[in-house]
Amino acid sequence: MSGNQLIKVGVVGATGYTGVELLRLLALHPQVHLQTVTSRGEAGTRVVDLFPNLRGYVDLNFSEPEMDRLGECDLVFSATPNGVAMGMAPELLAQGVRLIDLAADFRLHDAALWRQWYGLEHACPELLQEAVYGLPEVNRAAIAQARLVANPGCYPTAVQLGLLPLVEAGCIDTESLIADCKSGVSGAGRGARVGNLMAEVAESFKAYAVPGHRHLPEIRQGLSRAADKPVHLTFVPHLTPMIRGIHATLYARSLDGGVGVQELFEARYRDEPFVDVLPAGSHPETRSVRGANDCRIAVHAAPGGDTLVVLAVIDNLVKGAAGQAVQNMNIMFGFDERSGLRMPGMIP
Amino acid sequence: MSGNQLIKVGVVGATGYTGVELLRLLALHPQVHLQTVTSRGEAGTRVVDLFPNLRGYVDLNFSEPEMDRLGECDLVFSATPNGVAMGMAPELLAQGVRLIDLAADFRLHDAALWRQWYGLEHACPELLQEAVYGLPEVNRAAIAQARLVANPGCYPTAVQLGLLPLVEAGCIDTESLIADCKSGVSGAGRGARVGNLMAEVAESFKAYAVPGHRHLPEIRQGLSRAADKPVHLTFVPHLTPMIRGIHATLYARSLDGGVGVQELFEARYRDEPFVDVLPAGSHPETRSVRGANDCRIAVHAAPGGDTLVVLAVIDNLVKGAAGQAVQNMNIMFGFDERSGLRMPGMIP
Amino acid sequence: MSGNQLIKVGVVGATGYTGVELLRLLALHPQVHLQTVTSRGEAGTRVVDLFPNLRGYVDLNFSEPEMDRLGECDLVFSATPNGVAMGMAPELLAQGVRLIDLAADFRLHDAALWRQWYGLEHACPELLQEAVYGLPEVNRAAIAQARLVANPGCYPTAVQLGLLPLVEAGCIDTESLIADCKSGVSGAGRGARVGNLMAEVAESFKAYAVPGHRHLPEIRQGLSRAADKPVHLTFVPHLTPMIRGIHATLYARSLDGGVGVQELFEARYRDEPFVDVLPAGSHPETRSVRGANDCRIAVHAAPGGDTLVVLAVIDNLVKGAAGQAVQNMNIMFGFDERSGLRMPGMIP
Amino acid sequence: MSGNQLIKVGVVGATGYTGVELLRLLALHPQVHLQTVTSRGEAGTRVVDLFPNLRGYVDLNFSEPEMDRLGECDLVFSATPNGVAMGMAPELLAQGVRLIDLAADFRLHDAALWRQWYGLEHACPELLQEAVYGLPEVNRAAIAQARLVANPGCYPTAVQLGLLPLVEAGCIDTESLIADCKSGVSGAGRGARVGNLMAEVAESFKAYAVPGHRHLPEIRQGLSRAADKPVHLTFVPHLTPMIRGIHATLYARSLDGGVGVQELFEARYRDEPFVDVLPAGSHPETRSVRGANDCRIAVHAAPGGDTLVVLAVIDNLVKGAAGQAVQNMNIMFGFDERSGLRMPGMIP
Repeated sequence: MSGNQLIKVGVVGATGYTGVELLRLLALHPQVHLQTVTSRGEAGTRVVDLFPNLRGYVDLNFSEPEMDRLGECDLVFSATPNGVAMGMAPELLAQGVRLIDLAADFRLHDAALWRQWYGLEHACPELLQEAVYGLPEVNRAAIAQARLVANPGCYPTAVQLGLLPLVEAGCIDTESLIADCKSGVSGAGRGARVGNLMAEVAESFKAYAVPGHRHLPEIRQGLSRAADKPVHLTFVPHLTPMIRGIHATLYARSLDGGVGVQELFEARYRDEPFVDVLPAGSHPETRSVRGANDCRIAVHAAPGGDTLVVLAVIDNLVKGAAGQAVQNMNIMFGFDERSGLRMPGMIP
Repeated sequence: MSGNQLIKVGVVGATGYTGVELLRLLALHPQVHLQTVTSRGEAGTRVVDLFPNLRGYVDLNFSEPEMDRLGECDLVFSATPNGVAMGMAPELLAQGVRLIDLAADFRLHDAALWRQWYGLEHACPELLQEAVYGLPEVNRAAIAQARLVANPGCYPTAVQLGLLPLVEAGCIDTESLIADCKSGVSGAGRGARVGNLMAEVAESFKAYAVPGHRHLPEIRQGLSRAADKPVHLTFVPHLTPMIRGIHATLYARSLDGGVGVQELFEARYRDEPFVDVLPAGSHPETRSVRGANDCRIAVHAAPGGDTLVVLAVIDNLVKGAAGQAVQNMNIMFGFDERSGLRMPGMIP
Repeated sequence: MSGNQLIKVGVVGATGYTGVELLRLLALHPQVHLQTVTSRGEAGTRVVDLFPNLRGYVDLNFSEPEMDRLGECDLVFSATPNGVAMGMAPELLAQGVRLIDLAADFRLHDAALWRQWYGLEHACPELLQEAVYGLPEVNRAAIAQARLVANPGCYPTAVQLGLLPLVEAGCIDTESLIADCKSGVSGAGRGARVGNLMAEVAESFKAYAVPGHRHLPEIRQGLSRAADKPVHLTFVPHLTPMIRGIHATLYARSLDGGVGVQELFEARYRDEPFVDVLPAGSHPETRSVRGANDCRIAVHAAPGGDTLVVLAVIDNLVKGAAGQAVQNMNIMFGFDERSGLRMPGMIP
Repeated sequence: MSGNQLIKVGVVGATGYTGVELLRLLALHPQVHLQTVTSRGEAGTRVVDLFPNLRGYVDLNFSEPEMDRLGECDLVFSATPNGVAMGMAPELLAQGVRLIDLAADFRLHDAALWRQWYGLEHACPELLQEAVYGLPEVNRAAIAQARLVANPGCYPTAVQLGLLPLVEAGCIDTESLIADCKSGVSGAGRGARVGNLMAEVAESFKAYAVPGHRHLPEIRQGLSRAADKPVHLTFVPHLTPMIRGIHATLYARSLDGGVGVQELFEARYRDEPFVDVLPAGSHPETRSVRGANDCRIAVHAAPGGDTLVVLAVIDNLVKGAAGQAVQNMNIMFGFDERSGLRMPGMIP
């Protein structure tokens, strides 16, 4: 497809934070015609009545998610809660529509594991093998050919990008990885829950889900593939009082004293448009990627030992969700991978 | 000048928040070649070492502000503290460089008034009459021709856009205007001051400068021109615990019962690309313009009386500073007025 | 009752922010035995499971609100939503229990006005005249004798304390009062609503309820009594991105040039334990009263006119709710008015 | 000394956040007479002009730190920057004044190590062995007798309280400890630095000092004593966008499968007035200790491995500084250890 031609795009379930961020990016994308934006709960409402920032940019109403209209699209993004996309995927694919699911329905390749963590029987396990895990830094070629892309979770994006160079190089002990991750509150979604009220979470910090978080099997799957053997990872997510941003602090025991680790990271990501390895000694800030699709990474050797510390930051709604989805779209349709994604983070 | 040709642009004093925001916008502007970025204090430092969000977008070092290099520019933005631009303006203009000053040096037409509020003798009072006050919604034609544009202050932008329709229509009592304004902390600048530490200003709210703020004479000058007579305004600025955004709550006594006021606002701003009059009954949020050049306005009649309440929001760093400066540049050089400024506010 | 004896206190509806703040204060009060804490929704839950800050201080479970147990109390605080206390008040009073209602059920003396603003028929209009409006700075003597105290709203407390000296002195135009008020998000309560999520309200500022807020008639009632004639007030509340605090910025046209206004405020509040008039030229910060029962006030004459600007700050959950309720209890039971309330605001 | 008698207390260097918090606590302490409050920079200023929250509670001016006046005190708290207290300590002790240093001057027992981390020659190395490390949960008896107490750092308090039960029990591998710590911005102090402006640090998250932080040797010293052998710890501090609070997330490899770890923690801290072990499965929030002297701890076994995860929260200015100093004072003077410290955390 030529770069001059617009593709027809639909967004299913666009009333959450991933959805509105996707609309913000798609509204500016030079190769996209936004065809339809659906929401069961808000059908009939003007998009801009829910999201006034889009006034002047999106002139659509939310509509019911009807297969006929979605079937006219070249590509559908599904930004619904977990378990919805798997109900639509077979029919959309059958109509020749390509699909990027921003939820978790197609992220795990093992249907039993999916059921264990998500508590539902998978509706189309036969698609789990076909679905391409949409981390471009790992699967770029497969994404380009994919009908169905599983957009990675926010934590898994930051953790995998931070650990991949080490895991692939085989220079760390993969039995004792630790991912101490901190997320802004938009990661908890736009649902009305007491626990996410500003008066509850501002000016406070806490860990959550230490006994087990759904992103753990996703991270393990990705790192195990990279290592070509099972890896063990302790994953502790935390809620931090800001709206956007993920900071992953990653600990790994070096097997070789950590020499050359800076060069290892730089070489691994040299040609990646959205992974930025900072100079040695740096401490990336989440604000440097606020609103941007970049992942910034620094790697340190902790003083007095063989522990490596990797710091990786992303905007959970961009590289951790909507931006990465657009990046995947660009790859799938042969656009410049950075198309519609050239925007620096916002400081201050 | 054709839209295909790049203009050469310099930025003087780019280490503050207005400066970094200007660089963010200029880095994406399709008709701008960023020629030089100066800072006395940071000369030699890479721009991205101070502002890592610009990594991949700005590949310059800060340099000393030398007239030779600045003289090669088609346009210089001055984002220095008050009192600096007036020292450079005559020489730059003499070299044929056009100048947009984002500080206050050329905002007041009366040199005595300037001295009274800014505590300095003005260095080039002869330019005060030539300088065009860069509020496009008032002075678009003059801006297009201007050599020297005084970019408005943040509060004055919000207050004037909120009151102009009423003042121009002559339908309010201009003796009793009240502007109760709230600003995010980036408005206080990037200077190291205890009073702007996060531990001082987060989770707190206060008024400041009630006895007199420098934006008061600027607002009065603008509204008095619109009214064609002196207006009286009480202006109380407040510091609100967020980074970006200004919310002006404006009170005016209606002389005609307030009928047709919604239509008045809609008509006044119908053709303005960056002023968005919300439907009757709305309450604009500052976040709807975060990172965007829009001003969103709602107008209400207060219950049980003849008081009109206007609510106007801008991003103090965009429409209140750097974005408006780019808008002025677009007008001055005949570009599409929205060039480089098509970006929706960021929600969440 | 002697100061050495403990009174038995019940709290009805203690799962909201006013409730938990009341428990924090009562837990430390030397003359209070906390007898029962009720909640329909959380009956059976340990109080500390909901509010872990109280671990070690409150060793009770929430219980069903049963009249038998409440009837054993000397005093019941009702911290329920509007419309609940009026259903319990007659029976509690009949059992000899004194009642402080922190909701709005007994704040307005006019049943028709109550119905108009609260949308319900009042359940016991006969008590509206008996109920004492619990603003100690106005009604101290009546509070001491009261069976039923209507604890003022948060905005009405700040606005009335800020305007009373002027209104009582008759030195301002009571036809054109303006109250521009800003509240932290805890004022919106602990209900699960999208509009109060941190990702919605942090880093943003907005006005709300400009067409009419329920605190308007309450403020008007109080100021009209003080003025001994109807006053007119424009009231615009705003949501500010912090947890606690109200800042009222009050505008009034002086009838006498404003001379002596500082002394007027100082004289009015000289003997008030919880109203602190700041030195001339001050700007109170909400954080100076965070967690404290103080109201801090400054009064200014705006430059170049006859407008007086009063700045008043309170903690909406303390002087604006739970603290004022405890102050009222102290007055009702003859305790030192500051008992249990001697705690400075928390800076930083 | 009898509990009824007031001790005379001086505070040296009370203009920082630790200082103002100390004044807040001492102002309410029933056994303390606040004798003198010193500051070189603010001598002559009323304390309440700097900290208006203390209006009505502290009626002193800052004075020059003169040995004569300090010598009249029973106890002096030093809340100065590092390196100041060691200049005063010998003379104060010689005058019979007891001293609690809230800075780092006496925390390390090894003068060479102190010089290495703090860059200064120690002024009175002979006192380093006498000084008692003021962590009551370890050194209560010694504190009671001490002339000179080194109040622990904020991170070291949280990390040691979180790891002590495990280290003392010998049930973890002390070669691979990880402390991933997050602090609110008040921990960075009240100095005027760009890096701590609200516009820099709000809405962002970052690690800092990964190559080495001064609290590392302090933590290692404490844990090594508890283990009776050198321990190895990787310590990564992070700045989190809130004012108060530290959250330590601690990782340790269990040597015995982790059975009984909940009981181990409960037994270790059963009699501690300020350490609260939460029920199994809990996630402590920093806000639950905001303004309070409590440390709340939860311990988890991470899924699928032998890694223990301990979560410990404190208020960095209370249990991490001023509150712990008051606790030490209570122990030193035989007061109830909780005297002046009975105040629940503030939610919301």
